[in-house]
Amino acid sequence: MDYFLYKKGKLYCDGLAVEKIVKDFSTPLYVYSSRTILEHFVKIKKAFAKLKPLICYSVKANSNLSIMKLMVENGAGLDIVSGGELFRAKKIKCKPEKIVYASVGKTDQEIKQAILYGILMFNVESLAELNRINSVAKSLRKKVTVALRFNPDVEANTHSYITTGKKENKFGMDSESVSWAFLNKSSFPNLSICGIHIHIGSQITEGAPFVSAVKKTKQLITSLRANKSEINYLNIGGGLGIVYNDEKPQTAKEFADLILPLLEDLKVRLILEPGRFIVGNAGILVTSVTYIKEALTKRFVIVDAAMNDLARPSLYGAYHKILPLNKSLGTLENNEKKTDIVGPVCESGDFLGKDRQLSVKQGENISVFGAGAYGFSMSSNYNSRLRVAEVLVKNRKAYLIRKRENYSDLVRNEVII
Amino acid sequence: MDYFLYKKGKLYCDGLAVEKIVKDFSTPLYVYSSRTILEHFVKIKKAFAKLKPLICYSVKANSNLSIMKLMVENGAGLDIVSGGELFRAKKIKCKPEKIVYASVGKTDQEIKQAILYGILMFNVESLAELNRINSVAKSLRKKVTVALRFNPDVEANTHSYITTGKKENKFGMDSESVSWAFLNKSSFPNLSICGIHIHIGSQITEGAPFVSAVKKTKQLITSLRANKSEINYLNIGGGLGIVYNDEKPQTAKEFADLILPLLEDLKVRLILEPGRFIVGNAGILVTSVTYIKEALTKRFVIVDAAMNDLARPSLYGAYHKILPLNKSLGTLENNEKKTDIVGPVCESGDFLGKDRQLSVKQGENISVFGAGAYGFSMSSNYNSRLRVAEVLVKNRKAYLIRKRENYSDLVRNEVII
Repeated sequence: MDYFLYKKGKLYCDGLAVEKIVKDFSTPLYVYSSRTILEHFVKIKKAFAKLKPLICYSVKANSNLSIMKLMVENGAGLDIVSGGELFRAKKIKCKPEKIVYASVGKTDQEIKQAILYGILMFNVESLAELNRINSVAKSLRKKVTVALRFNPDVEANTHSYITTGKKENKFGMDSESVSWAFLNKSSFPNLSICGIHIHIGSQITEGAPFVSAVKKTKQLITSLRANKSEINYLNIGGGLGIVYNDEKPQTAKEFADLILPLLEDLKVRLILEPGRFIVGNAGILVTSVTYIKEALTKRFVIVDAAMNDLARPSLYGAYHKILPLNKSLGTLENNEKKTDIVGPVCESGDFLGKDRQLSVKQGENISVFGAGAYGFSMSSNYNSRLRVAEVLVKNRKAYLIRKRENYSDLVRNEVII
Repeated sequence: MDYFLYKKGKLYCDGLAVEKIVKDFSTPLYVYSSRTILEHFVKIKKAFAKLKPLICYSVKANSNLSIMKLMVENGAGLDIVSGGELFRAKKIKCKPEKIVYASVGKTDQEIKQAILYGILMFNVESLAELNRINSVAKSLRKKVTVALRFNPDVEANTHSYITTGKKENKFGMDSESVSWAFLNKSSFPNLSICGIHIHIGSQITEGAPFVSAVKKTKQLITSLRANKSEINYLNIGGGLGIVYNDEKPQTAKEFADLILPLLEDLKVRLILEPGRFIVGNAGILVTSVTYIKEALTKRFVIVDAAMNDLARPSLYGAYHKILPLNKSLGTLENNEKKTDIVGPVCESGDFLGKDRQLSVKQGENISVFGAGAYGFSMSSNYNSRLRVAEVLVKNRKAYLIRKRENYSDLVRNEVII
């Protein structure tokens, strides 16, 4: 569900013609729909209303300050994974008590900054990290709240790169390590260990893996409590899948209907960490056709966006729907010829879509859908390409929320010797 | 071959202790050896000396200004693929007559800038682009030299993402299109079409694909000349493979010995475009061990560099040798346990090496070898991580050639609404 809709063959974002936005801001361009963002947020909030969870928006999905601010203004907290994301959270004045911090590799400096800001809690990924946070907290004379990330060893049926809850993944701890930490919490006098965190992966379209992970977690909590451990928080992470092509992902309500019954008697403060679910379908990448190239067996639509702007097709083999901004312009005469939509980067891995049917002409603009999450946030300057601009549509007005880079940005930190 | 050598168990770069460099510039850090760079350049130059080719360093492999300048000062030209790379070339004052420009998606603006700078030639990838360059040249009242990129349809036996000379790739033109363009060159009055360009891929370790491509190209040139076309330039691209693990790539001399006999009677100015061959083994990524995490079946060495700093393992499944800076520190007691070297980025695709034997402790520094090409140039700010610093060692002195980013850099172009 999103508010990128065609009216009389022309694409609109929140009621604003995308072609008009492109005229003002040029291509390649990320365009986000605030209405879509907020509607997804509300869907999760409503679905879980019974437990009044803290919903922490997963910043890594799309870390633009204006999008973070939109979430926070509407009541969300933030799920951060680095010092850079903490810096962003401060920049938009997110209340520290609404911030949770996960990552397998938190450095001393990052831990210190987060403690000083007073974040709600760290999600701790290893015993080594537990020691580290305790000692940084000690040096600051602080007591710090932590949840332990439990790796429930479940199969999430998603791309192996974004599966995170199997025992062979680098994330979380097994139940023995978690239990050991709770039993030995006196060894960590500067920590209040009182929560469990799980996160089994990303773009998961079915409920079963979540149910299985939550059931295992419930067992663990029960056994911990039997040993007199206090568990006040349960963070069940993110990972809800969205529609890129023809997936039929569970809705927020279906998800809540499966999970809520398992949690109602648990007496914990529930935390959720949606990212892709909020912004994934709320963004498109608009790109212009530079050349059409007819090869013997294929047609190549060469556009001005590339793998450096949107890495997902190349990195994960991800599918993104691609359509013209103006459907009425297209001719269907060459419909039978398979078309690859490719960028100008000098490698064959640079494609946005393969074997499509897309009828467009040189100079036309096309839209790559589902580009709101892990789009700009993964972009690079590969081939010395400038990172593109980002626009957020809000109340029928298009706001520039990130300026297009210029050539000086490319070499800003370089030193010629 | 490179000048990253161990002496008494400690790693040196061009005779300078890497541990010392790290002390001054911190981790994660790219460290480059100018001696290795120049030695590879000389190897190619010597191997092809008979034909005195123009050797254009492929900027996309590593576009740091100081590395480009090192190449240009030593006599190289530049192979560029974007307006950003042209900007870089101007910045280090590369002579325009030593610049060749390839890319399937050159925009009007990029073409115009390159013509105004007076580059040697464009390598043209399609008939649509040929038209475009002609019309931009016309608007500027210039006559512009072009080579046509011929796609010889050969199998390069490398990763599919970096194979570029098969007919299903987006690159180049088939022989019919090339012939058509030469026969109809009067349709392009502002172009001097007088060269052929081929480039069959990257990291190619054997000679056969090159020989096959050059033979096909020779046939094409012969048939073009029979039709009274003038061919003054032959650009055989780059693609020479290097040693990442246990490859046994052809040497520059072996390569030249295969290719030169094919070219000697051709009477063309030869152009070469080496990139990875020059810088690939001339760079390492030094990273510090943040945590050691023992899981049931595996050990994870969690370091402060990640997939955003070096994308090759994640994107291509590429192998990079990984060793401690100080070999004598390691203990071998857990030698039997397989070790993954992973970064702090929140996805399982974030790894630098898998199933290795690596004996290191928390706080130690390790080196990821073969990181000079397609390392920093592909790096991003994913997970709001700061892009790292780059250091070039020259005459036994370490020079900072790119400053580490700071948090303000992350949000420099963002606008909070």
